[in-house]
Amino acid sequence: MTDHRLRITDNGLRITDYRIVCLAGGVGGAKLAAGLAHIVPPANLTVIVNTGDDFQHLGLTVCPDLDTVMYTLAGMANAETGWGRAGESWRTMEMVAQLGGPDWFSLGDLDLATHLTRTQLLSEGQTLTAVTHHLCTHLHIQPAILPMSDQPAPTMIESDGRILPFQTWFVRERWQPPVSKIILPEDVKATHAVVRALETADMVIIAPSNPFVSIDPILNVYPIRALLEDVPQVVTAVSPIIGGQAVKGPAAKMMQEMGMEVSATAVARYYGDLVDLFIYDRQDEGAFEERGEAVAMDTMMVDGDGRVRVAKEVLHASLNFLES
Amino acid sequence: MTDHRLRITDNGLRITDYRIVCLAGGVGGAKLAAGLAHIVPPANLTVIVNTGDDFQHLGLTVCPDLDTVMYTLAGMANAETGWGRAGESWRTMEMVAQLGGPDWFSLGDLDLATHLTRTQLLSEGQTLTAVTHHLCTHLHIQPAILPMSDQPAPTMIESDGRILPFQTWFVRERWQPPVSKIILPEDVKATHAVVRALETADMVIIAPSNPFVSIDPILNVYPIRALLEDVPQVVTAVSPIIGGQAVKGPAAKMMQEMGMEVSATAVARYYGDLVDLFIYDRQDEGAFEERGEAVAMDTMMVDGDGRVRVAKEVLHASLNFLES
Repeated sequence: MTDHRLRITDNGLRITDYRIVCLAGGVGGAKLAAGLAHIVPPANLTVIVNTGDDFQHLGLTVCPDLDTVMYTLAGMANAETGWGRAGESWRTMEMVAQLGGPDWFSLGDLDLATHLTRTQLLSEGQTLTAVTHHLCTHLHIQPAILPMSDQPAPTMIESDGRILPFQTWFVRERWQPPVSKIILPEDVKATHAVVRALETADMVIIAPSNPFVSIDPILNVYPIRALLEDVPQVVTAVSPIIGGQAVKGPAAKMMQEMGMEVSATAVARYYGDLVDLFIYDRQDEGAFEERGEAVAMDTMMVDGDGRVRVAKEVLHASLNFLES
Repeated sequence: MTDHRLRITDNGLRITDYRIVCLAGGVGGAKLAAGLAHIVPPANLTVIVNTGDDFQHLGLTVCPDLDTVMYTLAGMANAETGWGRAGESWRTMEMVAQLGGPDWFSLGDLDLATHLTRTQLLSEGQTLTAVTHHLCTHLHIQPAILPMSDQPAPTMIESDGRILPFQTWFVRERWQPPVSKIILPEDVKATHAVVRALETADMVIIAPSNPFVSIDPILNVYPIRALLEDVPQVVTAVSPIIGGQAVKGPAAKMMQEMGMEVSATAVARYYGDLVDLFIYDRQDEGAFEERGEAVAMDTMMVDGDGRVRVAKEVLHASLNFLES
């Protein structure tokens, strides 16, 4: 196959006609999506985001992964925390605590505006897809950011015989209870926009997000997994495990608790045939054992330049695979 | 009847065994309630508050009159605006506006914490009465503040053939559309706490709140009107019309639009036999025409001292009526 719509110029990689879809959870996904947004023309980039960790809190519909992706693409994300907005203040939340309300999930004054506006628009009958489009428009975000579904699709964590809503486990209990099982809902359907984006995509890039609680919830939404298996686009996954560790969050801990080896190899095996091309970090080059197409590169995204560099190399490797 | 449980001492009026209930709407009601709270032992004072102007906004249950009464009794009210909290900031609301959310109803950062906490507790299945008690406890408010009902009881405004939710008319359209009719809901029931407070009250004081959209919604809740008519307590009403004008808000405009004279006399006639003792301002002394028990006094409450003075004189007049 020789398709030269994707080209490297002196200014870097140029993509004109390729349609790219990125599947993303929170921080890692948001960083790669931001890198892609720097390179790929907005009309050609769609980010499909996990909504399995959405929840109702203080009366509001909170969508942590959607918000992390939105804030990161808008250049508003708090780089230190990995969640919420830069320049945030906490007047309302401090008062909620004084009033004896639940303060275990921190919602900053600026961040609250997102949840309030979203909840209002949802209450007026708009879909989460339409509301997300509304918010992105007002945040001047050009690529399409799509929730994986307009239906609620709550991820539940089974731990020591308890079944915990995701945010209870993740934030309230600081992801400490050991995970025996992740329970994903049945019968959740993707939106028309998600199906169309995947059907027309030339490349699907699975971001270096948690495979179990960020990516699996997306793949679990009908018919997303089938679309990735059946349609002719290249599916590239980027390992969230670097040097045998998770860059951030509970991925490595979960792998241990679920009896898996903590390695890029194990992630590649977990994705299996769904993925055409697996990208892992150079740190893991000696230890990487999986057959199949795989490329090692420096995948750490420590700053904005790092995001663009990784996005460019991931696109380049995917193009090479397409053209091989 | 001679009952000397209510006494004037050198320190002012002292009430020991009298049980006082105040029916209150927003600002005027809150001021008189605060004055009463300064004099009456907390265990003997209950404020029953209009919830007809409650509404759902930005996903939250907002109860403007309850909040005005709470904030005023807690010493946290914004004296300049007549609503909301002192020392308020507007970061979240400014961001809601930037996100294209509705910003016609201003919710400050501190105020928002009340609505968030209330909405959370309601979503956990608590009644509005229980939630209000929770909030009052955390705001160190000792007298009982009771919503008139735990059921939604929305006041609707009919104007030029349109039927508007109260806050749409009052805030969004700045009470400018002429009022042809006020529509109160049927089949709303008072809480057990409200019924018990009225059944055991020695005095019921109808605060100088709007008779049509603050007091009528309370009287409309079953069986509050019947309890005021039938039980032997003294019912004292304080005129919200001073010098032929409303101190604040739309009362005078509504009276005109509904074909009433704008006067303390008209308010006294409107309450009719429900009220045993009517208190009106000295400014209206010459024009006051209603027969029945009525007392003129200086009813303006311009500051904290004014509230206590008016509360004391209202209690005193009610006591004189009881003992006469």
